[in-house]
Amino acid sequence: MRAESDLTLIRIPVREDPSCAPPVPVVHPGPHDVARFKALADDTRLTLLLTLLHADAPVCVCNLLPAVGVGQATVSHHLKVLREAGLVAVDRRGIWAHYEVAPTMREWLRAILA
Amino acid sequence: MRAESDLTLIRIPVREDPSCAPPVPVVHPGPHDVARFKALADDTRLTLLLTLLHADAPVCVCNLLPAVGVGQATVSHHLKVLREAGLVAVDRRGIWAHYEVAPTMREWLRAILA
Repeated sequence: MRAESDLTLIRIPVREDPSCAPPVPVVHPGPHDVARFKALADDTRLTLLLTLLHADAPVCVCNLLPAVGVGQATVSHHLKVLREAGLVAVDRRGIWAHYEVAPTMREWLRAILA
Repeated sequence: MRAESDLTLIRIPVREDPSCAPPVPVVHPGPHDVARFKALADDTRLTLLLTLLHADAPVCVCNLLPAVGVGQATVSHHLKVLREAGLVAVDRRGIWAHYEVAPTMREWLRAILA
């Protein structure tokens, strides 16, 4: 019979890889990150963003409509998603809205859409 | 009564903004762009990617499991989505899989997740 003090040396086998490095620190995304990537995860919205990014000036929605080849209601919906994600800015002139990439997001979008 | 030749000069009024710039060239996303952003558009997947991005070496899935706080099946599903989008690479050692950010995507991910 083993002495009580020996029992403390018994190691319980666990399913772990002996070559594992120690646990890694978890890094969580910021509050707006997921919303931004959701806004980017659509073909029409990416086309709108890339088109705005390559334009020299704000683009009238009347020029975006033929560009993306979907209906006005669909384009309006996608532009709203991009606006709410803070990716585009709008300037309303009379009946037409002019869109541009939000100035604060321009460099970030250039980097990720390069 | 107008001569027939005059009719060609009649301009049909259209709903357009006279201050509009000429139509802009449309820029379409690449074939993998949408898939990549869809892979990024999830809180758990972003946590996995950020954690892998900040780790110095490939991370055993046994260390990722406690890190993200969801079940093994869920983590496996999310890692599969990231793998299929080309964002992470896996190295299987015995029963454990070790994950790292795909080397070709490291700089891009660093730029967009900064």
